[in-house]
Amino acid sequence: MSTDQAQSEAADDTYEQFEERVRRIANVSNASGILQWDQEVVMPDEGTPARAQQLSTLSSIAHELLTADETGELLAELEGGETTKSSRETSGETASSDLDEERAAVVREVRRRYDRETSVPQELVEEISETTANAHPKWKQAKENDDFETFAPTLEKLVELKREYANHIDPDADPYEVLFSDYEPYIDLETAERVLERLRDELVPLIDAIDDSDAEIETNAFAGTFEDDDQEALARDVLDSLGYDWGRGRLDTAPHPFSSGTQFDARVTTRFEEDDLLGSITSTIHEFGHANYTQGLPDEGYGTPLGEARDLSVHESQSRLWENHVGRSRPFWAHFLPIARERFPELEDVSPEAAYEAANQVHDDNLIRVEADELTYHLHIAIRFEIERDLISGDLEVEDVPDVWNDKYEEYLGVRPETDAEGCLQDIHWSHGSFGYFSTYSLGSVLAAQLYAAAEDELGDLDDDIREGNFDELNGWLRENVHQHGKRYTTQELIERATGEELTADPFLEYVQSKYGELYGLN
Amino acid sequence: MSTDQAQSEAADDTYEQFEERVRRIANVSNASGILQWDQEVVMPDEGTPARAQQLSTLSSIAHELLTADETGELLAELEGGETTKSSRETSGETASSDLDEERAAVVREVRRRYDRETSVPQELVEEISETTANAHPKWKQAKENDDFETFAPTLEKLVELKREYANHIDPDADPYEVLFSDYEPYIDLETAERVLERLRDELVPLIDAIDDSDAEIETNAFAGTFEDDDQEALARDVLDSLGYDWGRGRLDTAPHPFSSGTQFDARVTTRFEEDDLLGSITSTIHEFGHANYTQGLPDEGYGTPLGEARDLSVHESQSRLWENHVGRSRPFWAHFLPIARERFPELEDVSPEAAYEAANQVHDDNLIRVEADELTYHLHIAIRFEIERDLISGDLEVEDVPDVWNDKYEEYLGVRPETDAEGCLQDIHWSHGSFGYFSTYSLGSVLAAQLYAAAEDELGDLDDDIREGNFDELNGWLRENVHQHGKRYTTQELIERATGEELTADPFLEYVQSKYGELYGLN
Repeated sequence: MSTDQAQSEAADDTYEQFEERVRRIANVSNASGILQWDQEVVMPDEGTPARAQQLSTLSSIAHELLTADETGELLAELEGGETTKSSRETSGETASSDLDEERAAVVREVRRRYDRETSVPQELVEEISETTANAHPKWKQAKENDDFETFAPTLEKLVELKREYANHIDPDADPYEVLFSDYEPYIDLETAERVLERLRDELVPLIDAIDDSDAEIETNAFAGTFEDDDQEALARDVLDSLGYDWGRGRLDTAPHPFSSGTQFDARVTTRFEEDDLLGSITSTIHEFGHANYTQGLPDEGYGTPLGEARDLSVHESQSRLWENHVGRSRPFWAHFLPIARERFPELEDVSPEAAYEAANQVHDDNLIRVEADELTYHLHIAIRFEIERDLISGDLEVEDVPDVWNDKYEEYLGVRPETDAEGCLQDIHWSHGSFGYFSTYSLGSVLAAQLYAAAEDELGDLDDDIREGNFDELNGWLRENVHQHGKRYTTQELIERATGEELTADPFLEYVQSKYGELYGLN
Repeated sequence: MSTDQAQSEAADDTYEQFEERVRRIANVSNASGILQWDQEVVMPDEGTPARAQQLSTLSSIAHELLTADETGELLAELEGGETTKSSRETSGETASSDLDEERAAVVREVRRRYDRETSVPQELVEEISETTANAHPKWKQAKENDDFETFAPTLEKLVELKREYANHIDPDADPYEVLFSDYEPYIDLETAERVLERLRDELVPLIDAIDDSDAEIETNAFAGTFEDDDQEALARDVLDSLGYDWGRGRLDTAPHPFSSGTQFDARVTTRFEEDDLLGSITSTIHEFGHANYTQGLPDEGYGTPLGEARDLSVHESQSRLWENHVGRSRPFWAHFLPIARERFPELEDVSPEAAYEAANQVHDDNLIRVEADELTYHLHIAIRFEIERDLISGDLEVEDVPDVWNDKYEEYLGVRPETDAEGCLQDIHWSHGSFGYFSTYSLGSVLAAQLYAAAEDELGDLDDDIREGNFDELNGWLRENVHQHGKRYTTQELIERATGEELTADPFLEYVQSKYGELYGLN
């Protein structure tokens, strides 16, 4: 055996040890995922005390495995030397060139998580965890009683703790940028900010024009009451029709719909309200988009970043692409309305055009983010983004949040919340200590439009396919350009490879201007 | 602070560290339990590859936590010195007298598991695990093709490996005794053997007498076809009626019914066959007994042996007590038949007596253990016990198993299997490498009768309660005398405290002789 061969075999051994460790961590995290699904979907009410302990144990085991010295040693060895964090950051290198592209990607992703998790002292992690556990009931109580004061001290504490947390990870960076990168590691905050500003600047006048328009949009196509059981059957029809793989998934109900799992088992939840059939359909399509991405991750990558979804923006791009570009399109309703009529004969008199219009109403008088339409949604996000950024930087005091919130709603949406319950207390996220999360929703919408445009550039107009209920070409394109890559590429690389461009709001703005311009007779 | 106080606080610290470790292991194992439930009940078909990896990771983490040097050091410290395994065994001491009774029990139970798991080399554990993973498909194929030869080499390998495993744990003991004690640590094999022999000796003539009897027993009370949905509703009625706590449990279906979980979340599964309503009812009552035991474990003991069920025989005593002493009793059918008629009006003409008789048919021509009645069941077990014991000791060669099996069926039950599929290949257990498990089923029945008799000694005859659907007194007695103790006492201690006697087959034999003597007119 030559020296080269021996070295190469030793490197293989090191990589195998490393991968074994990485898979172990993934298996623990995926087990937690099942326990969380179980808790939301099937766990009996009084199971909480035991479940909380189980999840806490698994989470601390995963943390210990990741931050163990052995992980650091294996990473350093694979990176070709005792590279320190700061020298790596200066040189911009993340992995030794001896590793092939796939292995280098795994090392890059694990290194990033290792550096972050080892930077934060365990006591701070525990303090944040304890504070958020107590924050949730405070937030709930504050929202129920419309009393911001109940939640304010906790929010202040959380802001401080998360600032401290960010400071441990990177003392030289803008702390909000550090928090944002917990959710979206490979898009910089400046890009996010630019995109959100652009959305705000272009959507406000578009929404105003819609508001002033005389166009009469069908809003009552789905008025009525619809039995849960029939809605569930229809949700299954939705998933069947879009090509959900039932051998690797299932559908259940949960109070707050979500999708979770792995490529072998990517589950969807939805919910049914008897007076909101349309909401159940669009929510199911949205969750399909998430689960369909998960199902498209490569089997052989299971347990490593190669088999895991890129981060929140890309995930949200998949749910929004299916929900909006497919599920709120004219051809989709031409295809799906006959299916819906089989379950609900009362829809006999609804035309595909009326269904399409009902699915695309814009209402700027809505105060609640989760009920917002495709346009105003981004103003809800812009408001949260601006407030969070100023809160974390210290430019905004917690006590001033309600007024600033209400002022911004008045400015951007022309409507002022009368209570904090329907104002700054509406979302659960801050009680989780999640700052920096919301913008990934808007980035996801923007990316959805960019990907859909790129798919149509390559495949041609997809309307006929959708009208015929044929989603194979579109999904094939997504599998090839997004799903199969897992975390092999950074988010920017993935976007550029798939669309030939950096992340850009142009396709999204073209899409909404064309669609809503036509619907509301603005062009 | 006095020296005594300081010592006592240091001891408390050590115990707390120890308990933290023990809880951690329990949380990992309980997480595995949820993953297994999920796999049996809700997991999509193609989820297996990921689930297998998740379970394997959790199992090896639990093993590593238990067998870590720190565990051994904490145990030694709590036991009051560097006690070695052999000196402890010689002296019979398991814990330092400085610990209170509860802590001493926790130390005793963890010590036992620690000693066993550290005795067996990891390579052997892995070889057994790999061999059993491959054994299952071999067994399945052998059973499907009625071809023992397909399974024989694997069975031989498993017997060898389990012998080797037993030898590591205790080279001086009878290996079958060591294997048995994996399932039933605190009843010695001699006791089990004596009980099984006694059952065999007394049941064979009783069954012969029943066979010769002219009594006409109603066998067709539950003939008919019964919809799954209605059977499920009735299974819920069964659980409601017996007092199942739905806040800490749920009912689902699974191909092989089981119960699992913790005191906070003790779930039941059952199954429905359209032509076997009675089977679904008795199986649901059986699983209720298991889950009801779990629900009765003390909340504050969660995560330690104090909050865990005593072993298999005690668990089975709870399922059998409810299934047989309650569910196959005359007063139960007086209570339950009207409930069943609400779901199945076709039972209008069935009398409680006919239902009682149908639930207590004895048929000695049955070859299949899982279809056996309350009497012949134990002959099925005796046969397996005798064969296993001789296989492990080397007195019986694998190749001779089919003939010996068939001879014993002819001798004990008067019926000879025509195929190995309905003979020695019928049960899955050997393919799991489980030798020593079966007898706990019979021990459970025997203990059920002993506990039921002790409950009636204290509470008086329970027939009236049962006839009125009032199970609170009986369950209260079980909670107080069995459930609340978890693993605080050894099995023998638990039995003696609850019944005033050692484990004895007398109450079981009195019960069956009286019940079946009356039913079949033998007295």
